[in-house]
Amino acid sequence: MDIAEPAPFVMSLRRELEPALRAAADAKAKPLGSLGRIEALAIHIGLVTQSLQPNLGRAALAVFAGDHGIVAEGVTAYPSEVSALIAQMALHGGAGANIAARAAGAQVFLIDAGLKTPLAPHDALFARSVAQGTRNFLHEPAMTQAQFAQALEAGAGIAASLKEEGFGILALGEIGIGNTSAAAAVSHAVTGLPLERLVGNGAGAPPAGLSHKRDVLARACARAPVSAGRDALIEFGGFEMVMLAGAMLGGARLGQVLLADGFIATAAACAAVSLEPNLRDYLLFAHRSPEAGHTALLEWLGAAPLLDLGMRLGEGTGAALAIPLVRMAEGMLSTMADLPGDHPS
Amino acid sequence: MDIAEPAPFVMSLRRELEPALRAAADAKAKPLGSLGRIEALAIHIGLVTQSLQPNLGRAALAVFAGDHGIVAEGVTAYPSEVSALIAQMALHGGAGANIAARAAGAQVFLIDAGLKTPLAPHDALFARSVAQGTRNFLHEPAMTQAQFAQALEAGAGIAASLKEEGFGILALGEIGIGNTSAAAAVSHAVTGLPLERLVGNGAGAPPAGLSHKRDVLARACARAPVSAGRDALIEFGGFEMVMLAGAMLGGARLGQVLLADGFIATAAACAAVSLEPNLRDYLLFAHRSPEAGHTALLEWLGAAPLLDLGMRLGEGTGAALAIPLVRMAEGMLSTMADLPGDHPS
Repeated sequence: MDIAEPAPFVMSLRRELEPALRAAADAKAKPLGSLGRIEALAIHIGLVTQSLQPNLGRAALAVFAGDHGIVAEGVTAYPSEVSALIAQMALHGGAGANIAARAAGAQVFLIDAGLKTPLAPHDALFARSVAQGTRNFLHEPAMTQAQFAQALEAGAGIAASLKEEGFGILALGEIGIGNTSAAAAVSHAVTGLPLERLVGNGAGAPPAGLSHKRDVLARACARAPVSAGRDALIEFGGFEMVMLAGAMLGGARLGQVLLADGFIATAAACAAVSLEPNLRDYLLFAHRSPEAGHTALLEWLGAAPLLDLGMRLGEGTGAALAIPLVRMAEGMLSTMADLPGDHPS
Repeated sequence: MDIAEPAPFVMSLRRELEPALRAAADAKAKPLGSLGRIEALAIHIGLVTQSLQPNLGRAALAVFAGDHGIVAEGVTAYPSEVSALIAQMALHGGAGANIAARAAGAQVFLIDAGLKTPLAPHDALFARSVAQGTRNFLHEPAMTQAQFAQALEAGAGIAASLKEEGFGILALGEIGIGNTSAAAAVSHAVTGLPLERLVGNGAGAPPAGLSHKRDVLARACARAPVSAGRDALIEFGGFEMVMLAGAMLGGARLGQVLLADGFIATAAACAAVSLEPNLRDYLLFAHRSPEAGHTALLEWLGAAPLLDLGMRLGEGTGAALAIPLVRMAEGMLSTMADLPGDHPS
């Protein structure tokens, strides 16, 4: 390795405040437990921020974009060029990411983690391209160790920049033609779940059919039978996935509330948790995607997603839509009245 | 009847725009169908507003509050006075309704439909009290036919006032000690579902246990074996339930997007749909409450709620939290880009 790798170290989530947070939740003007999962969310937020009355500040939807060499194998319905088109659309306000962020009161940031087509400068763009797409992981590792380290550090740096600008909520999504293939291979390596459960249609069935995608991924995984999160990301990952992992690790260190989106973000989370098991307790999983494999990964992580709306658009759309639930939990702790005595509705 | 009853007439939902709405959804910059239930929601909104690019304006959370004579029978954990306390809290910004509305970008309005304790004037208050609580429906009808007509008309009037002020989204909730008893009796009468499936703890188990509540309700229902929505509301309803029904009927006539909250709002919806079957197609059900009977009522209505968060606070908290999903659907139709050709994420 040429570049010093940042320590992925995340402290185990401190739980000393949990009894006080539960007592605060129970003292609010409502029947005990009547806010259901919002109450669990409030306790999570209190622990992550180490505060009984958290003020999370602004919410960011960070969309990490990258391209994938594996697309050369015909595993996607669309060419790599489409990634940059969608990224551009997100910068100009017309993408799914933007409408979700508007609905949820969040601000969109687009990170070029490694698109094939460079993007013009833009206020909402973090230009962090590691390379113009990964290599074809059927034949060789998707990235070098140095590229992995660079991407991981860049991800943590983006979480830190946003934290500094007052974003205490970080919804994490992605753009990248071919990244359901990368996510299936990475998560298969890390979780040991059968590849058949993890390979789905992604944005659309590949021209040669799903069996072709499965076959390519099986050969790639046989080429490099790794199991550690770091190795899996180097062998099969996308730059956007590594940056997602870096943002999760960095955001956890900084006490940001982290909302992972769908299949790709969850696969990145599996790898990041394999890298740093303490991370798991800091992550919220926003929604359940119908993409094959997402439910299996959520189960592996022991995660119950907040929303289940049949969404599989990517771009962090699902992560964004969970932000109002986080806001409700924040408000429950910070602004909801206590009542003297008991109090139902 | 002393007072002329307003016609509950709601036109059957016009579906001529549906093919154009589906085509618009399919032309957006996303894989076909990839926004899942948000796409169905968009089509619903387009039909309700009769627009391909709806602009819903502001969102209101209307919380209808009323008291119940049946509380004299010991069916609640709390005395009727608590209803007004919570209503006051909602007017002053510290209730569950307020934190949900803030999280969802909605404005709270409190309607005194018939609280035992009158409320001081307030900008966010609609003073529409029909009487200071209903009568004890174990022994006599909860309200007169004239009171029913007055409450139904008041509800429709509130929807109209809010529409006039630019509120195109109406989230509908309630406050009222004793109203799970009223809701169980009303919905049993209307749906024919067994009372046992519809009686739950509400805000808290009654001192004499759930079996006592069940027994009281069984005797009340035996006293007045009605089945029509109107009769059921007169015999067992709360003024807040009748006003909810009126707001649904009025809002549907005006093309507002209507989000019903939990068990009580859904029971009011069952009665309103019994009164006017065309209403059903205009109603969205925001969330699934763990209150016994809510799922049964949703099934009876053929409704799949948008959220499932274990919330049973009332006050329209669940209805409010579905507003961002409506906003996303609105944005999908109104501001999301089309792409030339196909387009995944």
